Amino acid sequence: MIELHFAPGNANLAPHFILEELGLDFKLTQVDRSVNAHKSPAYLKLNPSGRIPVLVDGDLVLFEAAAICLHLVDTHPTCGLAPALGTPERAHFYKWLMFLTNTIQPDILMYYYSDRYTTDPDGGPAVKEAAENRLIDFYTIIDHHLAKNGPYLLGETFSAADYYLLMVARFGRSLKTSPRDMTHLGATLEKITNRDAVQRAFASEGIEAPFL
Amino acid sequence: MIELHFAPGNANLAPHFILEELGLDFKLTQVDRSVNAHKSPAYLKLNPSGRIPVLVDGDLVLFEAAAICLHLVDTHPTCGLAPALGTPERAHFYKWLMFLTNTIQPDILMYYYSDRYTTDPDGGPAVKEAAENRLIDFYTIIDHHLAKNGPYLLGETFSAADYYLLMVARFGRSLKTSPRDMTHLGATLEKITNRDAVQRAFASEGIEAPFL
Repeated sequence: MIELHFAPGNANLAPHFILEELGLDFKLTQVDRSVNAHKSPAYLKLNPSGRIPVLVDGDLVLFEAAAICLHLVDTHPTCGLAPALGTPERAHFYKWLMFLTNTIQPDILMYYYSDRYTTDPDGGPAVKEAAENRLIDFYTIIDHHLAKNGPYLLGETFSAADYYLLMVARFGRSLKTSPRDMTHLGATLEKITNRDAVQRAFASEGIEAPFL
Repeated sequence: MIELHFAPGNANLAPHFILEELGLDFKLTQVDRSVNAHKSPAYLKLNPSGRIPVLVDGDLVLFEAAAICLHLVDTHPTCGLAPALGTPERAHFYKWLMFLTNTIQPDILMYYYSDRYTTDPDGGPAVKEAAENRLIDFYTIIDHHLAKNGPYLLGETFSAADYYLLMVARFGRSLKTSPRDMTHLGATLEKITNRDAVQRAFASEGIEAPFL
């Protein structure tokens, strides 16, 4: 059975939404962050970078949330959560997924764990402030894209990239300008949040409203 | 004809290696960074985040280097640069590509442009130092992986992820511990560097030895 190592609200959310939407039989294994279980030798054997989540599917042990999402949609090609291989739509699907994982997600880490991103013991707040400013710019890029090409990242077609978007936008909910308050992005996030698969995943991770 | 907007040695390198290996007819269009052409209105229409590269292929305008790599290998399935869809090998291919683009590449930006990652005008050096320390840890994770599972990221099978690896490892060539000096990673980088496609791409971007 597929096993997802998770911590409530962590980067496991997007894979979890997809597992719910696919209706797969899977189990959740909680990583106890209060005792730094994600840095334990046993967990580091699953993922040497010590990050959450990890998916275990038979012999396959897979880390990197975006890779897990891609693996799940590729192995369930009839689910309609990703465009067909080799099409321009697939290229745009990759593009937004990359932007979310390599541009927004790292700045989220810098925002929440700013002290780790400087060797100056007093430097954290200035790193956090810069991360917050950049994040607002990046969410704004998505808001502008959705204004012209929405309601989803790929237009009328909902895809797994939108689940990823909800996850990384939710990470930014405490910014001085929150993604939920951006006109087009906010409306899109609300549509995604209302999906059954999302509500089931939130419930089983113990996440309560407000979700954004 | 395919057009790659590039600046010598920038994140266009991995797509460029692939274009060379595929033997495609393409043209390079240089983005003049000395006049900040990548922040010009014309370029921002191609890529709203103002980053290099962009690939234009007929009606398709695509940004995000990793997405461009995935698009190129998907549209040339016989090239052998990516495992077949839905296989465990494909999942690992995604995993490493994600790790390179969302973990190593952001820290490279922080290392080179550290002043932008803090609002403290004197905070840059401490951000740079922290980025350097993290990068060495991340390259070491790859070195350890290659020690057990090399010579390439997917074992005996060379893939587009290795081209991406060469690009992001080359970005780290001035670190106090360089990727080229790590036993297994260094040997892998040398093998990749010696490929004809890499040498042709370096030559046409005007990049001379030492390459690492």
